Amino acid sequence: MSSDTPRPGEIALPFDPGKQPPDAGLVFIGRIRTPWTDRHACPRNGRDSQDICRIEIDPPYAQGLQSIETCSHLFVLYWMHEARRDLIVQSPAFDSRSHGCFALRTPIRPNPVSLSVVDLLEVAGTTLRVRGLDCLDGTPLIDIKPYFARSDAIADATVGWHGQRTHPGRRSTAI
Amino acid sequence: MSSDTPRPGEIALPFDPGKQPPDAGLVFIGRIRTPWTDRHACPRNGRDSQDICRIEIDPPYAQGLQSIETCSHLFVLYWMHEARRDLIVQSPAFDSRSHGCFALRTPIRPNPVSLSVVDLLEVAGTTLRVRGLDCLDGTPLIDIKPYFARSDAIADATVGWHGQRTHPGRRSTAI
Repeated sequence: MSSDTPRPGEIALPFDPGKQPPDAGLVFIGRIRTPWTDRHACPRNGRDSQDICRIEIDPPYAQGLQSIETCSHLFVLYWMHEARRDLIVQSPAFDSRSHGCFALRTPIRPNPVSLSVVDLLEVAGTTLRVRGLDCLDGTPLIDIKPYFARSDAIADATVGWHGQRTHPGRRSTAI
Repeated sequence: MSSDTPRPGEIALPFDPGKQPPDAGLVFIGRIRTPWTDRHACPRNGRDSQDICRIEIDPPYAQGLQSIETCSHLFVLYWMHEARRDLIVQSPAFDSRSHGCFALRTPIRPNPVSLSVVDLLEVAGTTLRVRGLDCLDGTPLIDIKPYFARSDAIADATVGWHGQRTHPGRRSTAI
């Protein structure tokens, strides 16, 4: 995908962060199983989807799940392995203006780590059944964390540019 | 720190994820400046601290900040470069029971990526002034994302084990 030409208003870095010598290394600790095998089929926002997905933890990390069954919601961090990493300013389809990648939830960013809040429905061995994901089937898992309402829930948070977007109904993979 | 002997109730993996061949590579995109140079001085939870911290983005990534000034709150992802990675079950000081690392917000986990929600106070060039961080001065920055209340704020989320912890007032670096 890195050979794609940026759209008008978009800016690519003069280098590909994915081809730089890494500053730190991630290990994949499992995989995410979803109904979506094509990125255009993925929900624009996992919170809008009722589909149930599975998080499969690799056996060596199974003990790390202890007590997770007591959590109602989790943060899930995953690696967007198909995303390019060099598009620093992007033009989502639902807005006529461009925005920096750090003001967007697009998977396209220097470190393509995505973050979702999920409802935890069931823990069965090393498999978690959850609702709220939006990624491709087979996406590599990086981390799971408990969601604490006291520190993580900010009901009055606002994203100014998003409230003023010009085509709010239009679909885009680059939220 | 990896030579530390696990405490009673804690379990170390038979391998160190930090010494495995990495599955993916991160690039550091900046640094976090905080008042804390010793991990015992860091707040237990950044949301409880009124201290203002600075996020300094490296110049090549500056354009990625475009529109971020319209966000009231952000997710910040950072790399806990001093944390060991092999302690899969941990015993926080504030609880007599052990919990898996994925049920804890401890920096000690196979991929030591920490996540905080911060209030964005000011954007000045490539520096963000924020409130809500709890990490050491100099912590490497991985990513910044806008916080969307509609999908990210779950006011009624619960963490069962945390409500039943045995020493709720006791301080621990392993939240």
